[in-house]
Amino acid sequence: MNTVNLVIVGATGAVGKEILNILKERNFPINKLRLCATSRSAGTEIEFQGHKYLVEETTPDSFNGMDVALFAGGKASLEFGKAAVERGCVVIDNSSNYRMDPEVPLVVPEVNPEDVKKHKGIIANPNCSTIIMVVALKPLHDAAGIKRVVVSTYQAVSGAGKEGIEELTEQVKATLDGREYPPNKFAHQIAFNLIPHIDVFQEMDYTKEEWKMVKETQKIMHDDNIKITATTVRVPIYRSHSESINIETEEKITADQAREILANAPGIIVQDDVTNKVYPMPLFTSDRDEVFVGRIREDNTIDKGLNLWVVGDQIRKGAATNAVQIAELVLKYDSLMKKE
Amino acid sequence: MNTVNLVIVGATGAVGKEILNILKERNFPINKLRLCATSRSAGTEIEFQGHKYLVEETTPDSFNGMDVALFAGGKASLEFGKAAVERGCVVIDNSSNYRMDPEVPLVVPEVNPEDVKKHKGIIANPNCSTIIMVVALKPLHDAAGIKRVVVSTYQAVSGAGKEGIEELTEQVKATLDGREYPPNKFAHQIAFNLIPHIDVFQEMDYTKEEWKMVKETQKIMHDDNIKITATTVRVPIYRSHSESINIETEEKITADQAREILANAPGIIVQDDVTNKVYPMPLFTSDRDEVFVGRIREDNTIDKGLNLWVVGDQIRKGAATNAVQIAELVLKYDSLMKKE
Repeated sequence: MNTVNLVIVGATGAVGKEILNILKERNFPINKLRLCATSRSAGTEIEFQGHKYLVEETTPDSFNGMDVALFAGGKASLEFGKAAVERGCVVIDNSSNYRMDPEVPLVVPEVNPEDVKKHKGIIANPNCSTIIMVVALKPLHDAAGIKRVVVSTYQAVSGAGKEGIEELTEQVKATLDGREYPPNKFAHQIAFNLIPHIDVFQEMDYTKEEWKMVKETQKIMHDDNIKITATTVRVPIYRSHSESINIETEEKITADQAREILANAPGIIVQDDVTNKVYPMPLFTSDRDEVFVGRIREDNTIDKGLNLWVVGDQIRKGAATNAVQIAELVLKYDSLMKKE
Repeated sequence: MNTVNLVIVGATGAVGKEILNILKERNFPINKLRLCATSRSAGTEIEFQGHKYLVEETTPDSFNGMDVALFAGGKASLEFGKAAVERGCVVIDNSSNYRMDPEVPLVVPEVNPEDVKKHKGIIANPNCSTIIMVVALKPLHDAAGIKRVVVSTYQAVSGAGKEGIEELTEQVKATLDGREYPPNKFAHQIAFNLIPHIDVFQEMDYTKEEWKMVKETQKIMHDDNIKITATTVRVPIYRSHSESINIETEEKITADQAREILANAPGIIVQDDVTNKVYPMPLFTSDRDEVFVGRIREDNTIDKGLNLWVVGDQIRKGAATNAVQIAELVLKYDSLMKKE
């Protein structure tokens, strides 16, 4: 493959649209492009690089003659993923359907790019909160060995898609006008409120979102000895997830050392100049592909620990950008294989 | 004292007004009431229990013949606190001016009520985030011995007073209308944003707010061995602070045991029924005097640890209610002393 026949499944959703933006920005070498969605969204026209594309309803035949299929999320990959693989497509799946399948690599290109080579047709894109966290953790793990992570998240409503964004806007307006606007997408009112509940509750009363941060991180980092405990919280902001992360390490690492390591790591921008009130904030990290790290402090309670404040655009690096980066790796390794 | 001659200094601010509400609700035995404020607010009329009170400018003579002075916050207690004490007043101070003074008890009535007896004229009311946290920690510390706390906060704008509330409202409206509304009270835009910065930066790049949670907790709990590390964050909600708290204990304590201990503790309401989507949320804990605890889970990374989600109205329990409760203790111990 020097240029790619590419299918996007779920092209009309928030992540699908962002994938198109990123393909354009990164000048991804597309030969043929096919945009698919459910029957409800089929028929929509989408413009991409001067061409108009009619969105088609996804069927097994959507993958005939195609090289790579980017699944934006949801149940589509359960229904069509295997059909795509059978037709010779490499599937890059943003849903959680295959992430913990031992046959499926779970990849963050800054962390475990080589895992792409092991794929058997499907490569999974991790959960958004997990991606943002592991980009920041990996260089510190390499330098000092992370033993334990305590993380609390502050997650934007766009993690729940377009309806999440609309619900926040309309509910904020209604609240300011003194009107009721009952919750629909979220379990409770999100306007001027916090909801400590993302995805369904599972074992030990942790949510699925919280377990994803535990299990996906261990899989991506190839290290089940990294212990992670998480509390995930929805906050009334539009975009970018923030995470307050406390880590314990095997080796001592100072705040200055951590800043230097992180500043030199791929995909990270350090914003940590408190004298000038510089630290990452979701409003200013949206539409960016990097993970932003600040408030880097030695933990005052233990000898070998750090506190970090990490923010990233969960639709870009937390989903679309990471998926396109995986597609680039597929292309790169495929070309390398052809040369060998 | 069976009834009290009471001065409120800072009666026109958010905390001052809430103190008046709480005095009324709790039927505090007032003989004579005097409302004071800065010259800017003097002259305002405030109604209380059917009477109109003219707000006076605070002077040393404001305390003549008075028994208890409730200082709502700010610098007033530095200027007039000692003058009040010299005139025989017991000062209950909501500011941070005297909190770490070894001569001044720092009191949360559910935690260390007896410390009131040791006062030499001034009793300090702790920081709002600290009060909310220690009410939840104390019963668990008694049961299992808390060794270490990792806390991340989600703090409402009303922690920054009336201007904080107004800035959020006006900035949200402007943002929805596509207009600019530059930050004034906060360091950056708070509408649809998070600011990981409350109060000034101090040693080790922790904020003063973060150090308050460390040092005040140790003082209130009479235990410098409890290690606390904090990250404090401003969130775009109006009222009630939330805290994601991870604790390590000396003794094993199960989630069920913790729920039972907390449910039987004073000043706490356990809201922890995830099957029915019941957990504390700031929108529904405002105007309440209790501290709400939910998302109680055993820590999956260590043998003896818990995660908690704790929410409380920082203007009521985090400030005004706690101050009035201290005044009630002053009254109670004074009556007991007279009987002895």
